[in-house]
Amino acid sequence: MEHTDASTLAERLPHADVLLVWDFTSHAVREAWPGEGPRPRWVHTASAGVDHLLGPELAASDTVVTNARGVFDRPVAEYVAALVLALAKDLPRTLELQRERTWRHRETRRVAGTRAVVVGSGPVGRAIAGTLTALGVTTALVGRTARAGVHGPEDLDRLIARADWVIAAAPLTDRTRGMFDARRFGVMQPSAHFVNVGRGRLVVEDALAEALRRRWIAGAALDVFETEPLGPDSPLWRVPGLVVSPHMSGDTVGWRDELAAQFVELYELWAAGEPLVNVVDKQRGYVPGH
Amino acid sequence: MEHTDASTLAERLPHADVLLVWDFTSHAVREAWPGEGPRPRWVHTASAGVDHLLGPELAASDTVVTNARGVFDRPVAEYVAALVLALAKDLPRTLELQRERTWRHRETRRVAGTRAVVVGSGPVGRAIAGTLTALGVTTALVGRTARAGVHGPEDLDRLIARADWVIAAAPLTDRTRGMFDARRFGVMQPSAHFVNVGRGRLVVEDALAEALRRRWIAGAALDVFETEPLGPDSPLWRVPGLVVSPHMSGDTVGWRDELAAQFVELYELWAAGEPLVNVVDKQRGYVPGH
Repeated sequence: MEHTDASTLAERLPHADVLLVWDFTSHAVREAWPGEGPRPRWVHTASAGVDHLLGPELAASDTVVTNARGVFDRPVAEYVAALVLALAKDLPRTLELQRERTWRHRETRRVAGTRAVVVGSGPVGRAIAGTLTALGVTTALVGRTARAGVHGPEDLDRLIARADWVIAAAPLTDRTRGMFDARRFGVMQPSAHFVNVGRGRLVVEDALAEALRRRWIAGAALDVFETEPLGPDSPLWRVPGLVVSPHMSGDTVGWRDELAAQFVELYELWAAGEPLVNVVDKQRGYVPGH
Repeated sequence: MEHTDASTLAERLPHADVLLVWDFTSHAVREAWPGEGPRPRWVHTASAGVDHLLGPELAASDTVVTNARGVFDRPVAEYVAALVLALAKDLPRTLELQRERTWRHRETRRVAGTRAVVVGSGPVGRAIAGTLTALGVTTALVGRTARAGVHGPEDLDRLIARADWVIAAAPLTDRTRGMFDARRFGVMQPSAHFVNVGRGRLVVEDALAEALRRRWIAGAALDVFETEPLGPDSPLWRVPGLVVSPHMSGDTVGWRDELAAQFVELYELWAAGEPLVNVVDKQRGYVPGH
């Protein structure tokens, strides 16, 4: 086993059978992937998304790609619940008023009885829907295709036009890139809130900032961004009604241990010649599931 | 029907059959209550707690006291869930870092699998326990006496010594006043968080501030205070790890309408000579229930 970083990846890849991508923020694999000739037969990424590594050559090859499906589901669902409740209860404003030593009573919103749309029907999206449902929120799931319990993309506009909460938890693919644009924010209710825990490029960030400034929607929270880390000069830090967090929704204490243990389990299957699980459909860009 | 405020309450009380206490922050009833002689036969307060009006003379009289039991349960439970999740996910720090335009990834805590103790086994306490349980938190209820599903006070220290979350939602009575003192904060785990949505005087505020400064516990949130509103000079605004909110946990949009409708329902029972519901046990200081 060898450790490598972006600087030596290109020269080592042809000699590796298996590649574990531990730094899921890096785009090095996509850049270093050998076009033809020797290459790893299996690539595992310690992340749910595979957009950072899945270039056209890897997608066309017979290399198997697996991901960290399962590790982030419950933590991300809790994080979304934390944001939804904090926005409903006006917690950011409460903390501002505390800083100003100002006692100002407000009426807040009940979460039970409101409506959410979760875009992304994989394990993360389903865990989010489960947690919101447990809080009494009527929740609809939207996936790539309609199936039992999941709406297809053709229902999206109708659903978000009636939603109090629109949650983005989809993989980044050619079909989802930029799907939350000015038109979609315009369809939402002025009382609606938008939350993105998927991938930054699902959202046209300028359009979201503009929608918040014009009060097309009431508020938003972004945990993922087009460019990460967000630089100090980004205008997004100061958009009114926007909560910015540093891509941490799934990262609860012990998460790195869970990711490592998951790779070890997969490696044992691989070494024994057994079929792998969490295998990514490289054309679709995610692990197809229920 | 007449409206009165604190200045004329004493002179009008002897002429009233029924008193509706709409401003539940006022102590005027306790001060103006006629000792002997004519007095209202029924007092209803648009609040869950009755500590603000239940002086010894009213307690000893045959006047019936009713409260707003039921209106605040679910909203308070959601508010507690919002605080628990916000503290677990370090949201106050995230908002601080956003103000500083600083991207700083942290690992946060999972809520599922943690333990909570809810002190107060009335409808509010039970609603809180239900909501936390739905989030996967193992929750124990502590009431005035042990019964099925409820621990007695004798279990309190043992329970809070193992809890991640200690939630105060008890009525203010002679038995509960000051129950959260230096000794009790000393029993809690250094990783524990304390939340008070009951009454301010359940807590010895100086002791809580000291426990947070010395890091005996990890954090706290107070929605109620010994003196309300909290004045701008209160040191509580700036205690490290303390979230301060202005007694609003139960006050969701429409709450005043719900309170008014509840009084009208009770008044219809009263006018028809039917027995009232939500009748306070004036010795105990709350509506005894399941």
